[in-house]
Amino acid sequence: MLFDVFGTVVDWRSGVAAAVRRFAGEHGLEVDAEGFADAWRARYVPGMRRVSSGERPFVPLDTLHRENLDGVLADLGLDPERFGAGELDELNRAWHFLPPWPDSVAGLTALKRGYVVGPLSNGNTSLLLDMAKAGGLPWDLILGSDVTRAYKPTREAYLRQAALLGLDPGEVMLAAAHENDLAAARSVGLATAFIPRPLEHGPQKHGPQVSGAAAQTWDLTATSITELAAKLN
Amino acid sequence: MLFDVFGTVVDWRSGVAAAVRRFAGEHGLEVDAEGFADAWRARYVPGMRRVSSGERPFVPLDTLHRENLDGVLADLGLDPERFGAGELDELNRAWHFLPPWPDSVAGLTALKRGYVVGPLSNGNTSLLLDMAKAGGLPWDLILGSDVTRAYKPTREAYLRQAALLGLDPGEVMLAAAHENDLAAARSVGLATAFIPRPLEHGPQKHGPQVSGAAAQTWDLTATSITELAAKLN
Repeated sequence: MLFDVFGTVVDWRSGVAAAVRRFAGEHGLEVDAEGFADAWRARYVPGMRRVSSGERPFVPLDTLHRENLDGVLADLGLDPERFGAGELDELNRAWHFLPPWPDSVAGLTALKRGYVVGPLSNGNTSLLLDMAKAGGLPWDLILGSDVTRAYKPTREAYLRQAALLGLDPGEVMLAAAHENDLAAARSVGLATAFIPRPLEHGPQKHGPQVSGAAAQTWDLTATSITELAAKLN
Repeated sequence: MLFDVFGTVVDWRSGVAAAVRRFAGEHGLEVDAEGFADAWRARYVPGMRRVSSGERPFVPLDTLHRENLDGVLADLGLDPERFGAGELDELNRAWHFLPPWPDSVAGLTALKRGYVVGPLSNGNTSLLLDMAKAGGLPWDLILGSDVTRAYKPTREAYLRQAALLGLDPGEVMLAAAHENDLAAARSVGLATAFIPRPLEHGPQKHGPQVSGAAAQTWDLTATSITELAAKLN
């Protein structure tokens, strides 16, 4: 049982916004912390796409997040040079310490009794490890995207994980809040579980992705990881 | 805190001998199960050396163990062809299910509260994962030698693990029962903990490696993983 992490297991928006709020307070900046988090996240997919397309060699997600942070600051008219490099590296580590959704630890703990549980995330290994230690996520193992050197939704991101687990793709199930991730996993043979997270983009955001209604049909659908565990155990 | 596994965390000789004994019983063979385990293990270092020297491309330890099994059988005058291929693959999986030493689970559990704990083993990821699930080894993460694509004692085996953890080599400590492993780790900057396992090669075997006396000086020495945890916590 492998899990998408950002949005599915942890609440990236609240976690990043909290770190931005602290940072802004320390530097006397007036910023909309949630808007900052959204802008940072909006650069996530385009950043990975430049790697997946071959436009640039593989770099870990920490590096992409750090570059994207400079871009967000510049968009706000804030010269990244005004901050010490170490300060922005520290803010960048907000992505290592995102809070789990309320059901994540209990759900993974229950699943772990009958299944191998691990992340299948675009996060790098050290990011996922810090997050697990801080949040108590009881992964059996952590193989970050810097191990497979492939970002979802490329085929290799899914297939190399299955190969390292010594499993056929059909023996692996991906659980995710994002249907494009599930569709890519299914196209290479993985089983799929949809866990909508309607609060991923905040309480005001609406849309097909966040309504909780699946646009496609998946092997399983559950409203939480605890419910997924109950269905599988 | 990373750990050598075969011999340090698990008792490979008892585990393999038990599987050999079952296999021999099923096939009506008269074999010395412990001697078989020793002969299988004796082919371990030469097999990896052919990879590390560049004589052949990287193959996972499961593959080396499987080739070595054919060699052990042939040395005993047993044609591997007389067994179904699936049967020997199954016997080969004995290395996935080796029993922990009595202190391993408690010691790792205690260490895990204050440290990241993981294997730094020549085992492949799926082998280490099966072993952890069956034996209850509470690793925070598992990065097998098929992730680093390097076998100890080459430099890369140690340095690539540290890099994936986002740590400098000096922030990583290797615990091992084998002083050559510790010496190689130290030569690239890791801290070292020696945990002699005098029973690794069985109750009758004697020699400098198994006497429990360290030939060199290490950062820490402990007689068990629980004692190591007490010294570090």
